[in-house]
Amino acid sequence: MSDLTPRLHAGAPLRLEERFASRAGGMQASEIRSLFAVASRPEIVSLAGGMPNLSALPMDVMASLVHDLISRNGAEALQYGNGQGLPKLREQICEVMALEGIHANADDIIVTTGSQQALDLISRIFIDPGDVVLVEAPSYVGALGTFKQYEAQVVHVELDNQGLVPEALRQAIKSVRSSGRKIKFLYLIPNYQNPSGVLLSADRRTEILEICRSESIFVVEDNPYGLLGFDVPSPNAMRSEDSENVIYLGSFSKTIAPGLRVGWALVPSSLKEKIVIASESSILCPSNFTQMTISNYLADQPWRDQIATFCGLYKVRRDAMLESLETHFPASATWTKPGGGFYVWVNLPPEIDTKAMMPKAIVAKVAYVPGTAFYADGFGTWAMRLSYCHPTPERIREGVKALAGVVKTEIARRNGNFELKS
Amino acid sequence: MSDLTPRLHAGAPLRLEERFASRAGGMQASEIRSLFAVASRPEIVSLAGGMPNLSALPMDVMASLVHDLISRNGAEALQYGNGQGLPKLREQICEVMALEGIHANADDIIVTTGSQQALDLISRIFIDPGDVVLVEAPSYVGALGTFKQYEAQVVHVELDNQGLVPEALRQAIKSVRSSGRKIKFLYLIPNYQNPSGVLLSADRRTEILEICRSESIFVVEDNPYGLLGFDVPSPNAMRSEDSENVIYLGSFSKTIAPGLRVGWALVPSSLKEKIVIASESSILCPSNFTQMTISNYLADQPWRDQIATFCGLYKVRRDAMLESLETHFPASATWTKPGGGFYVWVNLPPEIDTKAMMPKAIVAKVAYVPGTAFYADGFGTWAMRLSYCHPTPERIREGVKALAGVVKTEIARRNGNFELKS
Repeated sequence: MSDLTPRLHAGAPLRLEERFASRAGGMQASEIRSLFAVASRPEIVSLAGGMPNLSALPMDVMASLVHDLISRNGAEALQYGNGQGLPKLREQICEVMALEGIHANADDIIVTTGSQQALDLISRIFIDPGDVVLVEAPSYVGALGTFKQYEAQVVHVELDNQGLVPEALRQAIKSVRSSGRKIKFLYLIPNYQNPSGVLLSADRRTEILEICRSESIFVVEDNPYGLLGFDVPSPNAMRSEDSENVIYLGSFSKTIAPGLRVGWALVPSSLKEKIVIASESSILCPSNFTQMTISNYLADQPWRDQIATFCGLYKVRRDAMLESLETHFPASATWTKPGGGFYVWVNLPPEIDTKAMMPKAIVAKVAYVPGTAFYADGFGTWAMRLSYCHPTPERIREGVKALAGVVKTEIARRNGNFELKS
Repeated sequence: MSDLTPRLHAGAPLRLEERFASRAGGMQASEIRSLFAVASRPEIVSLAGGMPNLSALPMDVMASLVHDLISRNGAEALQYGNGQGLPKLREQICEVMALEGIHANADDIIVTTGSQQALDLISRIFIDPGDVVLVEAPSYVGALGTFKQYEAQVVHVELDNQGLVPEALRQAIKSVRSSGRKIKFLYLIPNYQNPSGVLLSADRRTEILEICRSESIFVVEDNPYGLLGFDVPSPNAMRSEDSENVIYLGSFSKTIAPGLRVGWALVPSSLKEKIVIASESSILCPSNFTQMTISNYLADQPWRDQIATFCGLYKVRRDAMLESLETHFPASATWTKPGGGFYVWVNLPPEIDTKAMMPKAIVAKVAYVPGTAFYADGFGTWAMRLSYCHPTPERIREGVKALAGVVKTEIARRNGNFELKS
């Protein structure tokens, strides 16, 4: 480090940078972070966040449930638990997964602090610096961040309206291997993908599983949205076809509530011990209290009906967003038509930089996430993710309309036409 | 790997071992883990675990508190929160730390899933494989496990009845540096140390801080037991003397309840951004629900009185253990006399192997943790950790008496005297 390097933190000791681990070099505030601070202001219509809409959750029921839990089982709920998670909850998780065709043994489940922790644990046991992780293009920003912390090389694989493209996967495997690098796993979100909203077709699921099995590449199937299909049921989970090569991640964040921070990993038996040990080293044990809250909810409440209620709520919002896009967005934009989940992916004309456009959108009182957040390689400058999960349909319409105005102005400006007509 | 290598998991793909990250090589079940499965059987007096005694916690109050929290603020409590933790709780944590002389800014606090997660995050931002972490001899098994996962070299520094020995610290620094290795931090538990129960004297705190500051070595001060002094107040936290070189870890697991999984790190401002990013990558955000439970408890309940109640409860148990040791243990054993916390450290004659002795103790219906668990280097074969936090005083006396019988038999056997007289 040269003496000319500016010292951003005046109070920091000399050569602090040299005291960090190599992996810490990449730990810097992301665009999505600084955005959230602004987007959470009440006057802004946030089409940015992925917060589930809890307005349909019966709070009086939840209040009684946690009251009874503590008064009857407080000594257990408030005590340390075991690192793998409560056995009863793990049995119940098997029932939840059965809805997507999965036959699982509760002993192969590890309860995690949201499925984000599962991503972290899987990265921990598999990734050495320089190892390759294959992901969809685009992919979940939180997964990209975790892979980066473990110093993986992220290689994007083409995604189209039917999901990950098998032939592109074959090509990517060949290309990576010819360069001598190790591929540790394929990470994908088959149902209503974040950020694209795309559903992976049943045929492709089988084909991708075959490719990965024959190439000895684990498949990490991240499935927070699988039960949130609005129109037709989702195809069975990939894990239902392959119990030995698929690591399945589930979560109650979208089907019950994210504030409890309860997710899980269902892993091949050969991986379980290492994942449990990694989790204990990371958090000692998941919260008994929040696990028992989920467990009692699943045992005593009509949770399938509640999910159907959530689906109804999100479907109305999805429709509001697609209709507004159709009405207001310019013909040069294209977007996905999700059958479930939270997100629509919008492609603008390639001359538009959605990150540079953000401040103008904020002025117009609407927020989104720029496409580059979902690529490890700087791609996606002309794309954006819009989420319809949280605002009311009216606010969604208002936000999309305002955003369309910003987009049209930007297109006109880029085309040298500074006076917008319309 | 040779084809002759036995395949333990018949269903696992070929060469699974080669697919793991380097750090996963050391992820194997520890002695403390297999022990816990046995020690939790009701007929065994467990002097093994570190579970706080929740019998004094008013469960009716807690039940009402969580009920009211959900019915009034459910939409916030059950939603995603921010990665750093709730601002209000961070303000309250400043008040808690003020009891130990700390003046902190809430903006420098990161709320974690127990202080175990804070250990993980600190390891993540500092440790490259082969880096050195200095720890007391012996030290907390959970910290050793985390440092090992990040492939640190753990170097133990002598601990005596006044805590870490400053001169031994100087020697260790010199020795490590002469071998060309980097020291990333000193990890220590100044108050009622786990596993020794030792309190670091005030003079030594100052001296150790000076050494570490002058050598540019961060001090990680892990302080779960600081408010659990039975006889006299603990000296001020080390962080109260040095805000720039001390990373302070706190927890509500021992002062309120561990099942909520709420701990925190108070860090020098220059480290905050990286710790928050590391935490988001690890768990996205801590649970709003459990954070708000703690926050409302601190706001509305007499928490200082509750801690005093806990202290009274533990003091009676500490006394029962020390009296029983005095009454029953052989003269050749020595042990610490903790002024607070949960643990007594017992040294037996050096010919005794406490790990090998464990099955005999289990037969005698008592469990402890063998000393080797608390060393990274196989030391501690003749030592054991006894915890008095959880059983009743009667059960503690019963357990210590039974254990004394096992110890005496083992000493006699080792001395060739197979018929025990007494």
